[in-house]
Amino acid sequence: MKEIKIGIVGYGGMGGYHESDLIKNNPNVSVKGVFDIDNSKVELAKTKNLVGYNSYEELLNDNEIEAVLVATPNDSHKEISIKALNNKKHVICEKPVTINSDDLLEIVEVAKKNDRVFMVHQNRRWDSDYLIIRDLYKNKQIGDLFQIESRVHGANGIPGDWRHIKKHGGGMLLDWGVHILDQILFMVDSPIKNIYSDLSYVLGDEVDDGFVTYITFENGVRAVLEVGTSNFIKLPRWYVKGLNGSGAIYDWDLSGELIVQNKLDEKIELKPIKAGEGFTKTMAPPSEESTTKLKLPNPSCEYEPFYTNFARVVREGVDPIVKNEEVYKLMKVIEDIFKSAKN
Amino acid sequence: MKEIKIGIVGYGGMGGYHESDLIKNNPNVSVKGVFDIDNSKVELAKTKNLVGYNSYEELLNDNEIEAVLVATPNDSHKEISIKALNNKKHVICEKPVTINSDDLLEIVEVAKKNDRVFMVHQNRRWDSDYLIIRDLYKNKQIGDLFQIESRVHGANGIPGDWRHIKKHGGGMLLDWGVHILDQILFMVDSPIKNIYSDLSYVLGDEVDDGFVTYITFENGVRAVLEVGTSNFIKLPRWYVKGLNGSGAIYDWDLSGELIVQNKLDEKIELKPIKAGEGFTKTMAPPSEESTTKLKLPNPSCEYEPFYTNFARVVREGVDPIVKNEEVYKLMKVIEDIFKSAKN
Repeated sequence: MKEIKIGIVGYGGMGGYHESDLIKNNPNVSVKGVFDIDNSKVELAKTKNLVGYNSYEELLNDNEIEAVLVATPNDSHKEISIKALNNKKHVICEKPVTINSDDLLEIVEVAKKNDRVFMVHQNRRWDSDYLIIRDLYKNKQIGDLFQIESRVHGANGIPGDWRHIKKHGGGMLLDWGVHILDQILFMVDSPIKNIYSDLSYVLGDEVDDGFVTYITFENGVRAVLEVGTSNFIKLPRWYVKGLNGSGAIYDWDLSGELIVQNKLDEKIELKPIKAGEGFTKTMAPPSEESTTKLKLPNPSCEYEPFYTNFARVVREGVDPIVKNEEVYKLMKVIEDIFKSAKN
Repeated sequence: MKEIKIGIVGYGGMGGYHESDLIKNNPNVSVKGVFDIDNSKVELAKTKNLVGYNSYEELLNDNEIEAVLVATPNDSHKEISIKALNNKKHVICEKPVTINSDDLLEIVEVAKKNDRVFMVHQNRRWDSDYLIIRDLYKNKQIGDLFQIESRVHGANGIPGDWRHIKKHGGGMLLDWGVHILDQILFMVDSPIKNIYSDLSYVLGDEVDDGFVTYITFENGVRAVLEVGTSNFIKLPRWYVKGLNGSGAIYDWDLSGELIVQNKLDEKIELKPIKAGEGFTKTMAPPSEESTTKLKLPNPSCEYEPFYTNFARVVREGVDPIVKNEEVYKLMKVIEDIFKSAKN
């Protein structure tokens, strides 16, 4: 397969991460050069033997560049993507793809008209913690999962500069929310029946500093999604309940466990425990014989890495792993959450 | 103060607990005798040097008995309480006081007419874990609490017999739900603005085997209340967020911690951490200098034990700690939850 040469627009933290971690290690793609409105970033690129473009137009006029990675602040994704597509470049766009779902439809139209690929980088479909839970959901190691709780807790408030500003698409729902919602929608193959959401504004920003969303799917699965930036103690990254047991992944280090119910011939009589000013059988720990503790399985999935897939979509016309229809649905859900939280 | 002699109706687990743990150790009250429709329970009482009554009437006709403790299944509380009040006995009633709020109003009317005390035993207002959190809320050790999460997790399903049956007032909302809702309403002195609730029926009972309730109070405080009976891994009993830190009580053993934010002269630059297939500053752990870990404070409260208060309400006319208006409000909230969960 002929390597695809990529030009990066926006060489901040995310653009740099694509270059050094994702693209460099993939034989199907390479970075040729960089444009950034901050000239120091262009100079930085030059020190890494990349071409430093003086303008976006210069990048687009480079005929060797087949694809553009858009890694700029959220509110500029649309304009930059459309310009690239109209210049016959394929586009990889960082998330959230746009500030509203209509803008995404517009981009997709332009891509179609120019016969070019437009793919959103929903990178967290490849996170190991996610893949472990997705596998539990599919393979039912602890029975059918009926409750999936996904939390991302930090204690540093909202980071950086533009993420505090509404018109730039700031706030946690458009930052981490886009990730953890995408993960759930890509896991649970069922329409949404009901959403309850509450956005947090305790830090005094004009954008949300966190949120909780409670989703009921038509197949009965419940999902709790939560992002917090004032959580000095973390709840588990993942907490799931299945018909035969429970599972937890505590943190990014993949510490965690599964507790599975054993099939026993006779019911073990429970011993009540003291719980506050009362006794409880209901909340007594299950007897030792009645459960087994298992290690978490290793992460695995049936799909290929993002850039391998991107290259094959471009060269071979295979299906993209991140489909624009999925991203559109995701953006609609986010709009619903903003709307319902306002009322 | 002249000791109040109590007759117990319903000498199961809860009736026995009152006798052996709460009343025996209180100088203001004592148990004289017991009635139970299960004769073996009456016989058991006799072995403990208590009077075993052959009928409820016999208990009520005992003029030495000044007060009746009602510790029968939920759907019989009303009839038994009213009969006692009409026989000029004071009444202590187990929770949930009645299956619906109108029944409580009826009982309170009868109590008023007979000039007798009717008090519901909301015992978990005295739980040590609760008192620690209530104290945090009042004394703001980690700043104003804006998020209070109270979870009771077990893995044994619904216990016993009548608790599975709707007409007997079974289900977890009327069992543990009544406790943890009462605790929150007794802590947060603000009207409720909004409630979202979801009841769980995964175990196939006709009553709920757990629930989650998300309350927004008018003063801005959020409460998450959750009871589960298929949680093989427990989330913390309490998890709270304040403006200056977070707190957790992990289990009934009062294991837990507070993490408090330090006031620092300069902002410490955060180091991004690897989190799945990406880097994050937002969710990086706060630097070592920026927080302090504290032990949980000891439990304390400004109010006296339940039976001390009950005796003083009867003898001295002081205010009850558990007010019938509070219990009525609690029952209304529970009715709202059942109603909203149906829709």
